[in-house]
Amino acid sequence: MKVVVGSPGTVGGLLLRTGQCLFASASIAFMVSASGFSSYTAFCYLVASMGLQALWSLGLGCLDTYALRMKRDLHNPILVSLFVVGDWVTATLSLAAACSSGGVSVLFSKDVGFCSAYPLLSCKKFEISVVLAFATWLFIAMSSLVMFWLLASV
Amino acid sequence: MKVVVGSPGTVGGLLLRTGQCLFASASIAFMVSASGFSSYTAFCYLVASMGLQALWSLGLGCLDTYALRMKRDLHNPILVSLFVVGDWVTATLSLAAACSSGGVSVLFSKDVGFCSAYPLLSCKKFEISVVLAFATWLFIAMSSLVMFWLLASV
Repeated sequence: MKVVVGSPGTVGGLLLRTGQCLFASASIAFMVSASGFSSYTAFCYLVASMGLQALWSLGLGCLDTYALRMKRDLHNPILVSLFVVGDWVTATLSLAAACSSGGVSVLFSKDVGFCSAYPLLSCKKFEISVVLAFATWLFIAMSSLVMFWLLASV
Repeated sequence: MKVVVGSPGTVGGLLLRTGQCLFASASIAFMVSASGFSSYTAFCYLVASMGLQALWSLGLGCLDTYALRMKRDLHNPILVSLFVVGDWVTATLSLAAACSSGGVSVLFSKDVGFCSAYPLLSCKKFEISVVLAFATWLFIAMSSLVMFWLLASV
């Protein structure tokens, strides 16, 4: 199995996992600090999806750290298949969450003008949280592509 | 280059392209027939994204038909790279469009109760259009995975 930039058990892979975990946690933090977010299904789904993403990335980040410290090789087909499935599922869920919340944010600020009509609504925080969710998705998309490439090139 | 189910220039590939084209067109038809859809950014984006998807799939469907009739082989790395990029871009845009419109539909029908408050809003048509967009995404996701697998296994 080839070793490419960002593959499991390398410094690149660890950096990608750290990025995913940090951005997902920041996205959750901004969302839960916004008042009234729980009244909207899309925003609740964003929190759930980013929570799953943060946990998954944290787990794989720990595994990468262990592999780097112990100089273990994580490039075996069974492990990589598991990473591929997990990465693709979480990447799709993250993109879905970011987009549905993005759609609702744009609706609030532009289409129906809720943000100007109800100043108590934390529109700014909703938007920052959505941007952070998209950043998380960019990192997990990179990981997913690397994993799929590794698996396909066995 | 291996030939897998759904690869370009095969009957499976042609069926996938036909499915994408039909579902994307049906999604556009339901959306544009819903009154007032153009007031909402997410729904306009759905129409644009499904339009792009339908055109891309139609083009590749024609290419598949030509390859099947003339018994041409489309499995060369340059062509497949082009298909991979196009498929991934349109798949991501389709998922984003389906999710953002889905988020807005759920908000209308459940969170803020616009559907019961404004009976003139064509909520049913919005929802059918979103479901069709998700079906389109399922087909294009299958095509994208097959293409990426083909390219990676060269």
